Amino acid sequence: MGLAGMSNSLLNQLMESLRCLPGVGPKTAQRMAFHLLERNRGGAKILAQTLNLAMERIGHCRLCRTFTESDICEICANQKRDRQLLCVVENPADMMSVEQGAGYRGLYFVLMGHLSPLDGIGPKELGLHELAVRLDEQGIEEVILATNPTVEGETTASYIMEMVRLRHIKTTRIAYGVPIGGELEYVDSGTLSRAFLGRQPLS
Amino acid sequence: MGLAGMSNSLLNQLMESLRCLPGVGPKTAQRMAFHLLERNRGGAKILAQTLNLAMERIGHCRLCRTFTESDICEICANQKRDRQLLCVVENPADMMSVEQGAGYRGLYFVLMGHLSPLDGIGPKELGLHELAVRLDEQGIEEVILATNPTVEGETTASYIMEMVRLRHIKTTRIAYGVPIGGELEYVDSGTLSRAFLGRQPLS
Repeated sequence: MGLAGMSNSLLNQLMESLRCLPGVGPKTAQRMAFHLLERNRGGAKILAQTLNLAMERIGHCRLCRTFTESDICEICANQKRDRQLLCVVENPADMMSVEQGAGYRGLYFVLMGHLSPLDGIGPKELGLHELAVRLDEQGIEEVILATNPTVEGETTASYIMEMVRLRHIKTTRIAYGVPIGGELEYVDSGTLSRAFLGRQPLS
Repeated sequence: MGLAGMSNSLLNQLMESLRCLPGVGPKTAQRMAFHLLERNRGGAKILAQTLNLAMERIGHCRLCRTFTESDICEICANQKRDRQLLCVVENPADMMSVEQGAGYRGLYFVLMGHLSPLDGIGPKELGLHELAVRLDEQGIEEVILATNPTVEGETTASYIMEMVRLRHIKTTRIAYGVPIGGELEYVDSGTLSRAFLGRQPLS
């Protein structure tokens, strides 16, 4: 990367620092650097400002652990949300997907990951103690487990299910199966077997 | 994009400002924002700093017009380069490719674009007056035209070729043809016809 003998130039530093973005290799970083310099210096300066502010001010919501610049995020603070429902998701992106698509009006708990003992991620890292306190204190009547349908997601869901059951609160798991608009012919066998296992009586 | 009722949050501002990068849509911006917040706040702060510095300090080389934070870029300032050779390229990325691959040791002139009257890009925008001054003043013995093999690139090359010829300086165009390692079967017909037009005698 970089012109011979120019390895410490500001241009090369810019390309190098753009590589902290996920999925950005040397060629993309170069394209981004030239694009900003040629066509959007204003946008780049706004990006620099926002990055700085965001990295300094964005922390975690005290209640649901999602990212927020406040003590409590807007969803947890919203008195119109149904406080009897709690949806457990792995990360803020999942929470955002549910918000955008599902018509869900309850609260969330964001694990910020899944159980993964080999990476040193146990119940403590996922804030399960805080979750337990919340289950004990508040009037939650149903916990909806919406972790990903992966081995780690399932393990995490089972672990939390036990915690919730001990407190005699209803637990549910969102349905996994053939996606709407999908064709059986093109659905993978894992999804199909989940769809058969989770079949529902008609009538 | 964004959580309902959170449209002005710092997180949404971060996602929005990341979209000034080329090829970054809403989903990629979200992934980048969460990646930085979760895993690389340090890298993000360095990126912010470098973006700021780069946008303020990087201008154009007074001689070749490439990006540099100095008055004259390191290649133009390098006394070991062959000052009799001048390679004309469309943009700094092309100059970088030539530097990395071609073993070229002469100087450059970077047009920062190509002739495109419909977009208001004429000889003035490409710095062709500065190029003329350079051709008149200095001891340049060969101008190598390395614009892209597109309609605009060819037009630009012809225009510059005329300028150079008037000054009785040798002009050459880099060879276009079948790429090394390419197979004839998979080469497009435009490239193949260029390869036949540019065929060389084998003594």
